Parts: sequence; C-alpha cells; structure tokens
Amino acid sequence: MTTRLEQQFAFLLEAEKLKSVTRATPIHDGSRPENSGEHSWSLALYALVLADQAGHGVDISRAIRMLLLHDLVEIDVGDVPIHAQGGAAHDAPALLAAEAAAAERIFGLLPEDQGAELLALWQEFEANETPTAVFAKSLDRTQPVLLNLRAGGGSWEEFNVTLPQLEARVGAKIARGLPEVWQAVRARILPWFAARERL
Amino acid sequence: MTTRLEQQFAFLLEAEKLKSVTRATPIHDGSRPENSGEHSWSLALYALVLADQAGHGVDISRAIRMLLLHDLVEIDVGDVPIHAQGGAAHDAPALLAAEAAAAERIFGLLPEDQGAELLALWQEFEANETPTAVFAKSLDRTQPVLLNLRAGGGSWEEFNVTLPQLEARVGAKIARGLPEVWQAVRARILPWFAARERL
Repeated sequence: MTTRLEQQFAFLLEAEKLKSVTRATPIHDGSRPENSGEHSWSLALYALVLADQAGHGVDISRAIRMLLLHDLVEIDVGDVPIHAQGGAAHDAPALLAAEAAAAERIFGLLPEDQGAELLALWQEFEANETPTAVFAKSLDRTQPVLLNLRAGGGSWEEFNVTLPQLEARVGAKIARGLPEVWQAVRARILPWFAARERL
Repeated sequence: MTTRLEQQFAFLLEAEKLKSVTRATPIHDGSRPENSGEHSWSLALYALVLADQAGHGVDISRAIRMLLLHDLVEIDVGDVPIHAQGGAAHDAPALLAAEAAAAERIFGLLPEDQGAELLALWQEFEANETPTAVFAKSLDRTQPVLLNLRAGGGSWEEFNVTLPQLEARVGAKIARGLPEVWQAVRARILPWFAARERL
C-alpha cells in the first residue's frame, strides 16, 4: 500500500521537472532562458511583496499557493510564449484541454483529498474570476515585463513586439488586477519602445 | 522621491539574481546544478504539500513566506554546500556575519516597514527556534536528499558522503521538525548507501 507520505513525495519529485521547462523570457542578465520553476518562485515573491497593491477580497496566502502551482501543467504541455503566434495560442481549446488533462494527472499523484484541493486552486487561477485569481494572474503578466526590460528586451526582441501589442496582450491583464502597478511598469518600459520606434 | 512601488520593484529585480546562484545538488535528471531560486520554489511547495506533517504551533503560510526568502542572502554570499569542508563552514562566524550583512542590504531595498518585517522573518528562520522555523529548516534539509537520490547520488558522489555523515549533518535536522518524514526518507536512501558500502 502506498502511504500518504509516499504519494506526497511522488508529487514533489514530479514537480521537480518544472525546472526543465524553459520560457521565452531570459533571466536578469540575459544569459539563459528562465525556467518555469524559478519563474514560479519569482511570482510567489511578487505576491508577498506587492501584497499592499492587492484589491478588496484578495487572500495573499492563497495567491501565493496558487502561484506556486500555477505552471505545473507545463511539465506535460510546455510553456506557450504569450507573444508567439499572434498571442492566440494561449486560448486555443486544444491547449486548454491538454492543460486540464495535465492537471488531473499531476495533482492526481497526491492523496485524494489534497489532490482535489490543489486542483481546485489551479482551476480557480485558470478561471481568473475571483479577486485572488485576478491578482495572481496580473502578477503572472507583470514579472516577465520587468524581466524583459532588465535583460535589455528579451522576448520583445525575439518576437518583434510593439508597445500597442504589449498593451493589448499584457497591459490590459495587468491593469485588471493591479492598475497602479501597470501605470508604473508602463512608464518604465516606454523609453525602450520609444527608442526602437515601436510605439 | 522614490515611491513605495519603486522600492518594491528594486527589491524584486535584485531577488532575480538568486537564479544565478548554483547549489551542490543537481536537478532531477542530473543535467545541471540546481539554482537557489528554483530551490526556494521547491521548498515553498514542500511546505504546502507536507503541511499535514507539521507539528503543533506551525503556521504553514508563514513557513511558505520564510522559505521564499530564506536563501536571498546567497545573492551576496553564495551557497555553502553542507557536505563541503566537513560541514563546518555552515556555522562559521564569518559566514553568519556576511549573511546578516547581506540580509540588511537586500531587505533594505524595500520600504522600511516591509523590509523590517521580512528581515525579521529571515532572522526567525535562521534562529531555528520557533515551531514554524524548525519546520521550514527541516524541509530545507529534506528536499536536497530526495533530489540527490533522484539524480542518482548528486552531491553525495562529489563529496563522498557516508550514511553516518548524512545522518549526523542532515538527518538529525530533518528529524527535529519532521520525524516521520526522516524515517521515510532514510528508508528510501538506505539502498543507495548500502550498495556503495557507505554504511
């Protein structure tokens, strides 16, 4: 019989694979792509530090948990860059179905009660309706923008991104949960796009 | 004048550097060393998943926050492998002083009230006295053991570690906060050390 602890170890060891999933955004010094494990750490830290930006009804501890888990499905599905393929791939039904199946598999490694609880947390994040999920999703859009800027352009270079594109695909989503943060981030990135005549 | 948000961005961008600090433990497939950023993510996930192993008085949300922050000082000081130099380097006064100075610098980037709060959280972790800190420290010792085993030996090979050494340096610390976890982990690693006659 598999004990509760052995099921938890199996899940935690499976989760380690997220460190091998690479993203479009480079790390701070541009030396290599960020992976989804360390990205998840950054986001949890963002939620902790930017807690005072959270709107009414946001549960910060719940947001942190959500962000620790939010990318685990990429172990099966990989990361789909937001600026690739016109930004459409993110909402493709096939991708959503593959992510849902991955979530069932991965959270299914846990003891049943715990797996159901964490699956529900991931589903809440994906649905992006509760104040906590909107806050978490907004952070998930914020960190890559600051990281791209820090790395000198990052995936904006690779995908030839303009400011209007970024505003439509990313800025609107940041502004939904974190309007003041988007204002500040927009002011920071404006010179980069202006210098390249991508306004 | 630097706004509160700008101070928070400065801290979050500084924290990104933790992704460039490498550890002795390899990632799951042995392909490269783990970095301290993704390690911090793993530990926060361990706290979330192994919450039902926590003893009386442990605050899981606080443990998660502590683990998100616990290695930030390594941006200045680097990671000191527990199996290097007879295990003594971890407690050397010079290292402790350097870590304390790093914590002052890094948390000092934040708004004053927030910096003081997170510095206190890091100090609580380091002091290893409260039930929450003991739980968090025990997790910090658990994850590298499971990861080394998963990677086929990892830093145990590099430092020629024996089971009695591991029990003294690591096992005793895991057992302090997570006795049942250490029992299960010990049973898992025993065959690896037995096969190499390192009992």
